[in-house]
Amino acid sequence: MACPKNRLMVVVMSFDLGKVYSYIDEQAEAFVKDLVKLVKQPSVSAKGEGIVECAKLVEEMMRDAGLSTKILTGQKGNPVVYGEVKSKSSRKTLLFYDHYDVQPPEPLEKWKYDPFSGKIAEGKIYGRGVTDNKGNFVSRLKAVHGFLEVFGDLPVNVKFFVEGEEEIGSPNLEPIVKAHKCLLSADAAIWEFGGTDRHGRPELYLGLKGVLSVELRAKGALKDVHSANAPLIPNPAWRLVWALNALKSKDEKILIKDFYENVRSSLPEETECLKNIPFEDEEMRKELGIKYFLKGVSGLEALKALLFQPTCTINGLISGYTGKGSKTVLPHEAMVKLDFRLVPDQKPEEIFEKLVCHLKTCGFEDLEIIKYGSTEPAKTPINDPFVVLVAEAAEKVYGKKAVIYPLSAGSGPMHLFRNFLGYPIVSAGCGGPESNTHAPNENLEIEGFIKGTKFIATLISDFAE
Amino acid sequence: MACPKNRLMVVVMSFDLGKVYSYIDEQAEAFVKDLVKLVKQPSVSAKGEGIVECAKLVEEMMRDAGLSTKILTGQKGNPVVYGEVKSKSSRKTLLFYDHYDVQPPEPLEKWKYDPFSGKIAEGKIYGRGVTDNKGNFVSRLKAVHGFLEVFGDLPVNVKFFVEGEEEIGSPNLEPIVKAHKCLLSADAAIWEFGGTDRHGRPELYLGLKGVLSVELRAKGALKDVHSANAPLIPNPAWRLVWALNALKSKDEKILIKDFYENVRSSLPEETECLKNIPFEDEEMRKELGIKYFLKGVSGLEALKALLFQPTCTINGLISGYTGKGSKTVLPHEAMVKLDFRLVPDQKPEEIFEKLVCHLKTCGFEDLEIIKYGSTEPAKTPINDPFVVLVAEAAEKVYGKKAVIYPLSAGSGPMHLFRNFLGYPIVSAGCGGPESNTHAPNENLEIEGFIKGTKFIATLISDFAE
Repeated sequence: MACPKNRLMVVVMSFDLGKVYSYIDEQAEAFVKDLVKLVKQPSVSAKGEGIVECAKLVEEMMRDAGLSTKILTGQKGNPVVYGEVKSKSSRKTLLFYDHYDVQPPEPLEKWKYDPFSGKIAEGKIYGRGVTDNKGNFVSRLKAVHGFLEVFGDLPVNVKFFVEGEEEIGSPNLEPIVKAHKCLLSADAAIWEFGGTDRHGRPELYLGLKGVLSVELRAKGALKDVHSANAPLIPNPAWRLVWALNALKSKDEKILIKDFYENVRSSLPEETECLKNIPFEDEEMRKELGIKYFLKGVSGLEALKALLFQPTCTINGLISGYTGKGSKTVLPHEAMVKLDFRLVPDQKPEEIFEKLVCHLKTCGFEDLEIIKYGSTEPAKTPINDPFVVLVAEAAEKVYGKKAVIYPLSAGSGPMHLFRNFLGYPIVSAGCGGPESNTHAPNENLEIEGFIKGTKFIATLISDFAE
Repeated sequence: MACPKNRLMVVVMSFDLGKVYSYIDEQAEAFVKDLVKLVKQPSVSAKGEGIVECAKLVEEMMRDAGLSTKILTGQKGNPVVYGEVKSKSSRKTLLFYDHYDVQPPEPLEKWKYDPFSGKIAEGKIYGRGVTDNKGNFVSRLKAVHGFLEVFGDLPVNVKFFVEGEEEIGSPNLEPIVKAHKCLLSADAAIWEFGGTDRHGRPELYLGLKGVLSVELRAKGALKDVHSANAPLIPNPAWRLVWALNALKSKDEKILIKDFYENVRSSLPEETECLKNIPFEDEEMRKELGIKYFLKGVSGLEALKALLFQPTCTINGLISGYTGKGSKTVLPHEAMVKLDFRLVPDQKPEEIFEKLVCHLKTCGFEDLEIIKYGSTEPAKTPINDPFVVLVAEAAEKVYGKKAVIYPLSAGSGPMHLFRNFLGYPIVSAGCGGPESNTHAPNENLEIEGFIKGTKFIATLISDFAE
């Protein structure tokens, strides 16, 4: 079904971006105040803390900015706050994907200020979620608000999709997106995260890896037995070790049959643009106390591995006695948690099938295999006109060439928009190299926040042309 | 240095065993009372509970029975209670190895009666340690007491060595035994455990497997990191999986170089005597809810594997996140606990060296290897005259041919007596097939206890001849 387009008569109108910039500068203090208010509202999805209150606040802020809003809910999960403004002068639509939920603030003792105080110090706003993702959301909202205040109109139609479960893997998002195909139609989208690097260069991300999380369980006897019985009684811990060994070899090669089948090799232009990425690999090794990266890679080679390599990771495993000293026990069960990071065009469903089949082929049909969450990888081509447009807009505001990541090592529900709804997506934001997202003392520089707001205004303006 | 022999003039004396039997029957109730008293005294070595009190009570009981006693202590560990009676009429010496410590009684809710109540019901005494090993100790003491009461003398010299750390692997025993070579010299010894099978046949055990307990630790980064970093950051859980895989293959073959080097193959007469062992393998599989034993063995073949095969067992392992659901984490450490059950003539020290060397050769020099306790295997030949003598004494009392286990699947400090002090050792006792040793509702049939006392009296009498 084709989605109905904005039927309004298009009025040719001129939007002087300078006026919007001036408005942003004038209102900077008020914008910060609004962001602090949002940061003060806890919204920890992992604990279900403050979710409804935060969704309500987000909706209020959207309305105050002149958007019409709507709450989207699925059969379960936290509400999605949708907002939109129709342009009188354009048929083009830009969508912003954001989330109002935040990571848990723990460990609390490592915070300089209360994580939900929104404390302002040293030109920064401190608080859990201030960069990831409340600051980005507010910068976008304020840019839109700016156009509406100054011109009573926008150069493009704008849509906001602000979900509440990003930090727990967006487990309930798919049916919501699929049920609102027309509502969420757009010509391009800006994803939730991004910022500037140590040199003040804007960073843009064109994709996310997919992920598949599974658990394998091996069972032995009905109960733990004395290890004297080891010549006779199957040991599930050994079963698990051998099964895992059949999944990945010591040289880090994933052995699942056809695992690498749909891996799209990186294009020369993608590899080329890695050269511009300031990857501080030695610093990373030093911080983590490791001498070498896997396979001894470093520099560009390491960055390429980080972004383009699919992985199979043991997240955790347990069996039997793990206390102090020794215990002569033969355990009756063993469990391992694994995640697979997938790159375009691997599909989690297919990888899961291949995993099940491989374990069976290798003689491990006795293992129980539990599938947890999964998301597909998603990527927008580096030469997509929208990527060029975003990069140029960023350069205008930041005065430096954008650093483009063809893919990010992380994961998220981008594929629902990129693969299902089908438009180009770039992730960009107003974070900084010391924003401490997901860590104690998360913060956002006020200057970065205001600049980020101008960047979005510029992008809105440029996208219309 | 040769140990000085008993220098007393040997007086030829006749010991009418019938009189000792009558005394035992007459005193049965008093014997039970004394055993109950000992059971009521908790002595949980794993928790250090009641140890000193129990050692004191054991020494008192020995003195009351007419033994001279001595407390043997090492630099650390629980006291060993030593007792002896010199015979006026024999230079031969029989030593009894026992232990006064018991397993923890947990889980308490599964006991019908308080585990330290010594409750008598259904012709049985209930209590933690009543069979393992307090009942056996008291039966031996009472047999000796019987001779002394009836004749004022014993047919042989008798020594008791009653330690307090058997249930935690006798970690401090070696220096004590080595420091008292002469005191502990003997012509033969009776080990702590044994009993009758479902058909009332006495069971004798001629040896114990050795054991070596180790822990392997793998380290990665200084802290857990996001699993998005998996293409670069070493994962200690994977390291451990691959190291373990290098130790044992899926077909249960231990891959450590020269691991099987000193394994003494079982003799035809040993294999032959397995045929008399009522090994209820189908019942065992049913109880444990497993369809097959490892490698599909059953019956005699399974029994042979159980007794003569060395093993490498994962007792427990842990790494990373093991809670509910999934967590995209890359752990920074991983740990596995292993035990090796060893058969004659494997030596734990050699096996440890081979393990270290093998891991190094296989490229796992990064693993930390921690050695916990170890004991050597020990075995008395099936055709040793003492074995024949014990078997005949048992047949006289129980009216059925003894079932001889050339080796037991369990472990213990027997090697200190068998290998270091050099005399033949047989393990025999008064337990039954439903004694529940190491389990809730441990009990000892009063009839079995009294019969066991007569068996020891018979053995003392026969050993003199």
